[in-house]
Amino acid sequence: MTRFAGGVEAGGTKFVCAVGTPQGEVLAEERFPTTDPQSTLGRVIAFFETQQAALGAIDSLGIGSFGPIELRCDSPTFGYITATPKPGWSNTDVVGRLHSALDVPVAFDTDVNAAGLGEWQWGAARGLSNFVYLTVGTGIGGGGMINGALIHGLVHPEMGHVRIPHDRQRDPFAGCCPFHGDCLEGLASGPALAERWGAPTESLAADHPAWELEAEYLALALVNFICTLSPERIVLGGGVMQQEGLYQRVREKVLECLNNYVRSPAIIDAIDDFIVPPALGNRAGVLGAIALGQRLLQA
Amino acid sequence: MTRFAGGVEAGGTKFVCAVGTPQGEVLAEERFPTTDPQSTLGRVIAFFETQQAALGAIDSLGIGSFGPIELRCDSPTFGYITATPKPGWSNTDVVGRLHSALDVPVAFDTDVNAAGLGEWQWGAARGLSNFVYLTVGTGIGGGGMINGALIHGLVHPEMGHVRIPHDRQRDPFAGCCPFHGDCLEGLASGPALAERWGAPTESLAADHPAWELEAEYLALALVNFICTLSPERIVLGGGVMQQEGLYQRVREKVLECLNNYVRSPAIIDAIDDFIVPPALGNRAGVLGAIALGQRLLQA
Repeated sequence: MTRFAGGVEAGGTKFVCAVGTPQGEVLAEERFPTTDPQSTLGRVIAFFETQQAALGAIDSLGIGSFGPIELRCDSPTFGYITATPKPGWSNTDVVGRLHSALDVPVAFDTDVNAAGLGEWQWGAARGLSNFVYLTVGTGIGGGGMINGALIHGLVHPEMGHVRIPHDRQRDPFAGCCPFHGDCLEGLASGPALAERWGAPTESLAADHPAWELEAEYLALALVNFICTLSPERIVLGGGVMQQEGLYQRVREKVLECLNNYVRSPAIIDAIDDFIVPPALGNRAGVLGAIALGQRLLQA
Repeated sequence: MTRFAGGVEAGGTKFVCAVGTPQGEVLAEERFPTTDPQSTLGRVIAFFETQQAALGAIDSLGIGSFGPIELRCDSPTFGYITATPKPGWSNTDVVGRLHSALDVPVAFDTDVNAAGLGEWQWGAARGLSNFVYLTVGTGIGGGGMINGALIHGLVHPEMGHVRIPHDRQRDPFAGCCPFHGDCLEGLASGPALAERWGAPTESLAADHPAWELEAEYLALALVNFICTLSPERIVLGGGVMQQEGLYQRVREKVLECLNNYVRSPAIIDAIDDFIVPPALGNRAGVLGAIALGQRLLQA
């Protein structure tokens, strides 16, 4: 009998809820804007109650959430969104609320780990034990797997907040991260681009100097991830990466910046296959959340 | 019956060979300078042959080696030191030579992963599933564990070569890494300090501005490792860290640089217990190599 997992992509801007099979076939889906926790989680519950009625049952639920979140099962705040800058959402018990309303086992992880899992199960990271998934959009976030397990630790990665070289003579923009100024997110997220160049990202032409600089910042961060984690592949997505030619620029800068130090043919001879877009596009998040849920059923 | 593992700390400057029990008790030890591969590995073999004769048998061998090295068992050059800048050592078959001479199972890893394993087994990282081990000396190298397994991947980490912010107005030194100039190793290794300040590291007084800058560079790198891997602890060692007061400076800069973004009490309230010196000191390498060997016997 097919078992159904619910998936929730809990984003700071929008929520996506869906129900899917172990093969990643999606039976129903709904997306709505993120408002306050009470009404947003209320809509999540209403969606899955409708699906439970329609399908007979949903067997588990996976949630990939914006953060920071508490992932340690032995913490009293396990399953919470913790000290988030997003107004109204600090200390929100996401897992507890959904678990008690829907009465199914719940798996919880970061939005980027969930999307990474989606790409691992059905997309561009299939079969890999070590990869990074990085998304560059309104924010920058990263996750992935090491030794075949999603990257957790003391808390969870915050890859958008790494520090990279920033030449203020060439780029006097101070960065827009409220915590760090010119960390990666502060220099290279969509809002950083818009603020630096005084124009919406979509309006910057392919030959605008913005993209050369953007490729350089992203490459510096990717090189740091390569030197720290030694991934077999980097899946790089998000709205900013839609820009024509940006992948090629990033790949060139990565090779330049590594300067043959990490002499792996997988990088040097096959960079197009080493830094790749998500195969699931913007569906990685919700499909990954379904995959999180389905894993509970196979355990 | 006690089973004995040999351990080899294969460094670019010196080799340390030892034999130890599952409890990490060392029965015999020898250290000698690294010369050419032929004679250096010859001395390793001679040491263990003597020990085999004395003890009856050695049951396994663990090697923690300078790099880069090939760790993929399915590679034709598994167990080799590969394209190292160290003269004479490129493409040296370390595992093959020792295995065929001594006829015992051999475990092979980076020097820093081995040292990290030593600290995990008997030292400052005991019981942790996620930690970073970083050594700052002639070079800078890092390893550790994620999800309870030593960090491998496409190749292995090269944490010394991450890029960090470098303000050339404040610090015009271009960095001394032959591959990258001002990567972490190029800015903050022992030779970088000596070259920038024109004096041997040991001669720089505790209040010399060298240490403020050094603490800042190391903190920037540690913050990047925290944001990328989310370790539960960072074990920070190596000759440069012997400088009085340097740990305290690094800890302060890490907190400053994170700026409360990763709000974990393990970092914010207990930084002295989060960034720690190796408990095994300069014995971490060889003890870790013994631990690598002993693990083969428990598998």
